[in-house]
Amino acid sequence: MAEFDLIEKYFAPLSMDGLKNDTAVLDISAGHQLVVSSDTSNRGDHFVEEMSAFDAARKCLRANVSDLVSSGADPLAYQLNLALPKDLDESWLADFAAGLAADQKEYGIVLSGGDTTGMSAGGLSVSITVFGLVPTGRAVLRSGAREGDVVVVSGILGDAYLSRLHMPSPPLVLAPLVRKYAHAAVDISDGILADLGHICNVSGLSARLEFDKIPLSEKGRAALENGQASAEELLTWGEDYELAMAVAPEDIECFQKQAEALGVALSVAGIFEAGAGVKVFDRNGQEMSFSKTGWVHF
Amino acid sequence: MAEFDLIEKYFAPLSMDGLKNDTAVLDISAGHQLVVSSDTSNRGDHFVEEMSAFDAARKCLRANVSDLVSSGADPLAYQLNLALPKDLDESWLADFAAGLAADQKEYGIVLSGGDTTGMSAGGLSVSITVFGLVPTGRAVLRSGAREGDVVVVSGILGDAYLSRLHMPSPPLVLAPLVRKYAHAAVDISDGILADLGHICNVSGLSARLEFDKIPLSEKGRAALENGQASAEELLTWGEDYELAMAVAPEDIECFQKQAEALGVALSVAGIFEAGAGVKVFDRNGQEMSFSKTGWVHF
Repeated sequence: MAEFDLIEKYFAPLSMDGLKNDTAVLDISAGHQLVVSSDTSNRGDHFVEEMSAFDAARKCLRANVSDLVSSGADPLAYQLNLALPKDLDESWLADFAAGLAADQKEYGIVLSGGDTTGMSAGGLSVSITVFGLVPTGRAVLRSGAREGDVVVVSGILGDAYLSRLHMPSPPLVLAPLVRKYAHAAVDISDGILADLGHICNVSGLSARLEFDKIPLSEKGRAALENGQASAEELLTWGEDYELAMAVAPEDIECFQKQAEALGVALSVAGIFEAGAGVKVFDRNGQEMSFSKTGWVHF
Repeated sequence: MAEFDLIEKYFAPLSMDGLKNDTAVLDISAGHQLVVSSDTSNRGDHFVEEMSAFDAARKCLRANVSDLVSSGADPLAYQLNLALPKDLDESWLADFAAGLAADQKEYGIVLSGGDTTGMSAGGLSVSITVFGLVPTGRAVLRSGAREGDVVVVSGILGDAYLSRLHMPSPPLVLAPLVRKYAHAAVDISDGILADLGHICNVSGLSARLEFDKIPLSEKGRAALENGQASAEELLTWGEDYELAMAVAPEDIECFQKQAEALGVALSVAGIFEAGAGVKVFDRNGQEMSFSKTGWVHF
């Protein structure tokens, strides 16, 4: 099937304007800034071969939505760039589009455009660029953490490590509260040690975590106890797509209550202090040591 | 070398903010809309193996800049998503970044962010999403052609077919004139027959071209005469990245003069009339027939 037929059949129905043009024209509400982020996901690396095309689409889109949440942005639209093996079965593409359709509804976002290409060399690569809006000056960055802020983590961590088919659920509903309460935020895509490390680096601070307060799932705790997973494996595995944030201690109670009302649990897992790097302490007050901090992409 | 080191070394210097965040925050000037477009280029398909990384970078970026020109948008920034073979030589990336740097200067555009990934399955894929600005309501689309408009083509066509290493030069300088004079425009990425066909489809018109008025390069004319290339090959090969536009006949003289002052030649190659599809006539008034209309992506 030719590129234009594929686009007409599978992607035009997902779009705001039927993809009649090669460019999209987006209105940016007055008093707002545009937030942009991109993620590339390759089959075999970022999603496994056994994952259905439906779920692969959702995982790719959610990795991008997660970046919007972390900056406190409301979703607007996304561009989809596909490099596909030339012998790809059309049913894969049909399932992939169905997955996108499901998540567009879930996250209130729409396809603005993209490009669909065949790749002679093999491989299957999905690049998404996502657009969101924030009131001007209100985007949450990595650089805003302050000494004495508490380290707040959304949801639970560790399940992505325990299941290769885990579907993350970035807490998009939290975006308005993130920009209200978070001084800095990052989404946990490379493991909490690495991602919190980014906040520490650019904010010029250290983060001190208490291992027991890091919100691991029941499965994660059980895996730790029966030796199926190590603390390092759980803390350095990416793809949980929850948030790590810096929040003023006096705000945490209100933030937690309002997040809970939206169905999102927030845990206080530590504190930002003077210094550099992320340190984790066990229940005996001993610093835990790790041989790596996070997912290595190459 | 790890992803973050590669980004710090090669891509942070190309960016507006050092890529300290996973998201970019862009200001959209009051009274403007955002124009967005994406192109994916795969090594072996969209640029040949023999092309230097420096030139590959420029060709990928120019394919995107070309979409901005065709919609009359001024360049703002771009996202870069890379899926690279895991054994890629670092010098390739260094040359690629140098090519981007050269074209950022040439086209007044800056890197806003992106993602750099390794792809186990092999293959090398470059996805770029480009952002531009137009005064609100002034974006030029494919749908605005009117009966009686002339078909205007920028620059010369055919050289992309004649050299696998051809470097296109989308006439970005023309953007303000495109939004002033063009009722509809498209960039010629898939060959003039296919791309003009898009305008015809969505504008509900036919285009009637005179072959002798299509601006072929000297090389192209020579290749026709000595049988090295057929008319079909020249007209259905993509990647010239010039513009095809619909312009009111009374405006063409002013448009041509003002474009010429900017160093861009404009040719009147035909007319839009009632009907459907693109027709080409030879010097004897005979309709020429073609077995295909353009580049097939799969």
